[in-house]
Amino acid sequence: MPLASADPTFLDALAAALPGDTIRPADARFHEEPRDRWKGAATHVALPRTTQEVATIVAQAHAARVPLVPYGGGTGLVGGQIAPEGGAAPLLVSLERMNAIRAVHPQENVLIAEAGAILLDVQNAARDADRLFPLSLASEGSARIGGLLATNAGGVNVLRYGNARDLCLGLEAVLPDGTIWNGLRRLRKDNTGYDLRNLLIGAEGTLGIITAAVLKLAPIPARTGTALLVVDSPRAALDLLALARGRLGDGISAFELMSGTGYDFLAETIPDLRQPFETAPAWSVLIEVGLPQGLDPAEALEAVFAEALEAGLVSDGLIAQSDSQRQDFWAIRERIPEANRHIGAISSHDISVPISAIPDFIPEGIARLKTIGTFRVNCFGHLGDGNLHYNVFPMPGESRADHDHNRDAIKRTIHDLVHEMEGSVSAEHGIGRLKVADLERYQDPAKLAAMRAIKAALDPRGIMNPGAVLRM
Amino acid sequence: MPLASADPTFLDALAAALPGDTIRPADARFHEEPRDRWKGAATHVALPRTTQEVATIVAQAHAARVPLVPYGGGTGLVGGQIAPEGGAAPLLVSLERMNAIRAVHPQENVLIAEAGAILLDVQNAARDADRLFPLSLASEGSARIGGLLATNAGGVNVLRYGNARDLCLGLEAVLPDGTIWNGLRRLRKDNTGYDLRNLLIGAEGTLGIITAAVLKLAPIPARTGTALLVVDSPRAALDLLALARGRLGDGISAFELMSGTGYDFLAETIPDLRQPFETAPAWSVLIEVGLPQGLDPAEALEAVFAEALEAGLVSDGLIAQSDSQRQDFWAIRERIPEANRHIGAISSHDISVPISAIPDFIPEGIARLKTIGTFRVNCFGHLGDGNLHYNVFPMPGESRADHDHNRDAIKRTIHDLVHEMEGSVSAEHGIGRLKVADLERYQDPAKLAAMRAIKAALDPRGIMNPGAVLRM
Repeated sequence: MPLASADPTFLDALAAALPGDTIRPADARFHEEPRDRWKGAATHVALPRTTQEVATIVAQAHAARVPLVPYGGGTGLVGGQIAPEGGAAPLLVSLERMNAIRAVHPQENVLIAEAGAILLDVQNAARDADRLFPLSLASEGSARIGGLLATNAGGVNVLRYGNARDLCLGLEAVLPDGTIWNGLRRLRKDNTGYDLRNLLIGAEGTLGIITAAVLKLAPIPARTGTALLVVDSPRAALDLLALARGRLGDGISAFELMSGTGYDFLAETIPDLRQPFETAPAWSVLIEVGLPQGLDPAEALEAVFAEALEAGLVSDGLIAQSDSQRQDFWAIRERIPEANRHIGAISSHDISVPISAIPDFIPEGIARLKTIGTFRVNCFGHLGDGNLHYNVFPMPGESRADHDHNRDAIKRTIHDLVHEMEGSVSAEHGIGRLKVADLERYQDPAKLAAMRAIKAALDPRGIMNPGAVLRM
Repeated sequence: MPLASADPTFLDALAAALPGDTIRPADARFHEEPRDRWKGAATHVALPRTTQEVATIVAQAHAARVPLVPYGGGTGLVGGQIAPEGGAAPLLVSLERMNAIRAVHPQENVLIAEAGAILLDVQNAARDADRLFPLSLASEGSARIGGLLATNAGGVNVLRYGNARDLCLGLEAVLPDGTIWNGLRRLRKDNTGYDLRNLLIGAEGTLGIITAAVLKLAPIPARTGTALLVVDSPRAALDLLALARGRLGDGISAFELMSGTGYDFLAETIPDLRQPFETAPAWSVLIEVGLPQGLDPAEALEAVFAEALEAGLVSDGLIAQSDSQRQDFWAIRERIPEANRHIGAISSHDISVPISAIPDFIPEGIARLKTIGTFRVNCFGHLGDGNLHYNVFPMPGESRADHDHNRDAIKRTIHDLVHEMEGSVSAEHGIGRLKVADLERYQDPAKLAAMRAIKAALDPRGIMNPGAVLRM
């Protein structure tokens, strides 16, 4: 049976079962997304305050076969949170009112947050308890925990602390038939049945709505240090990573690669940003370490630098001597996406390959792009995770619009190469609505069939975020 | 339709499709399990050499509706690897011939092993590449990677490195219809679809047969140190853990609690084992740290000891000054299970509770047991993970057989208490055949329903390890 639209009859009946202001017309903010690829078309949004209200919404939608699109902070980059025109009209379900920090257990290194809690608020609540919630990414001021888990968000601390999935011990969620799963376990070990938690994490709202989560905290490292080192090549950067790990082990929390193109874009579009080197280095890495008591991070980084210098891996470098210098280094890394937006990418790629394949991948990608045209490539990102943002730009004097006709060929060329190298065409951002065809093209067919079987089993009516991840 | 037995017609047809010696009568070792609770009844075992051969076996079993029981190292403690009498006769599938280390990528901190590789061999292959594979447990000399992943094994290093699931980046598996899923990704970040990997990990062979895995390695810590500290109570032990973490962060790789009863059992049953303290301490903890270059572990542990002494958390302690002393400390912890076997437990419990609930759980369990009779409790285990082995023994002069009639009441009492405290009745060992009723009693009904739906979707004929985990 086909899906039904969230029409006035359905909305009125649902509104009658909920507090007065729960169902509302969807204002403009629900129709926009950061990259302006889609325009949302949902007429209404539900704003539940409790898990029970979410269950009521899902149960009635299930009974009436009305599609639902869960909505977190609206920061997703692949359109998973957007209800576009066409097909049965869905109801948006925004978790923004469920934003409580339900509990903090410092002795257990655990925090329990509702799905609508903003990442920055969770980070601050952890810090108030003298703990670290390590998930950190550009949109942390507006991204919400439910969406971050539904998309298994990454960010800059994955090298040490893992992705969002690795920072979650338990979930509470409403399943597609409206039943509430209470899986808010604060346990480090629990081998009682299938891993439903990890199945919902990364499912992008297609298997249920996450309403709360048990999050893992970490001790705040006693001392933190940051260095910006100039390397000869991505291969030298990898050797530097191995060298640093041999000395400092898990102490390395970030290892970010930046290309000369990135520095050039910064100089061109954000001229008042202080550049740390006189000449923009072709390749450099930002290293951040968090070390236990008894170790001086600046000394430890100097020792790494000296050894790497001797091994011929680095040619220049700066070690932050103050917090403001540390912030200057990070500003270089963090403002590259802003510079990219000023320049205007023809095509952006959030990809990962096995770490040791990176030195071959970067030039091979550039070589293959030459068969299409002449472009600038700004390649930067989380080298320690094998995750690069490999973005393709027009030459100076051209605009992205001049290359609209090349976009598909560029994307296909890069994604095919990633696939050949056993990589992923969506390292951090997920599938959403943007990469459904990529998933079909590149994913292992046995896994794809298993995904379809799981979706049909848990959401037989197909009401949960239809059009995202899988075409059923 | 009911399942069919692995009868001569099926076995002959299958044998004809495989190399000559693949299907064999099952020898006695396949019918035994470590705790002697079950006697296996399978007449035959398949010993495939390749993933393709596993696929042939599963496809033919699927077509003929013949049940399969995957077999790893045979070390499971809940009967998941045993094909007991009754119902359609299953075929065992032992992965022991698929024991290759397919590749080691030191730069990526990655090793690819076949499912039949023995854990000790994987540890050694990692060490040969100057890396650490951190999974470590009592049965590491015979347990195999496939079984360790299928049961999400734990062990002594979970505090720092996580469970088996946290040490796996990718899987190759044969799904219940005989298709091969190639998910051997060496990626730290890959957000392309549902997390099939974590679904198969911990499913105990009921959703497919794992044939190979990409495993995560870690740098070998530059320096390792070990201390044995006497604490006043489990609560003081938890405060000590927080204090040590504040100083040393992730550097703590093991934090094991031991009770005076454990020391008494060791003195009674293994009298030639050197006891470190003149008087057996009522409570003590074994701490192991692995630290980066520049830190002396003995000094770091002495600083923790001094601070804890001042705070009144510890009253005595020893810090290993040599490797042989370190081994002496570990021998105390590691030989407790042996001493327990000599004494003979009435009932053993592999449980976890939220870490901060442990100080209340231990005495409350003892108090509730008094309503049943008079017993000795040896409570020990991975305090840092909230995972205790809470084992109940007869008083001196009595035997476990004297309490056969109390076993069910003891188990129920402890498990009910664990459940009240939001814990798990199977922290490490899984469900297998032993705890199917416990799962039904204690698991959240929404999760149980989702598990059944997933099982029916991926294995509609119910051929994969029937009777384990779920009663369908």
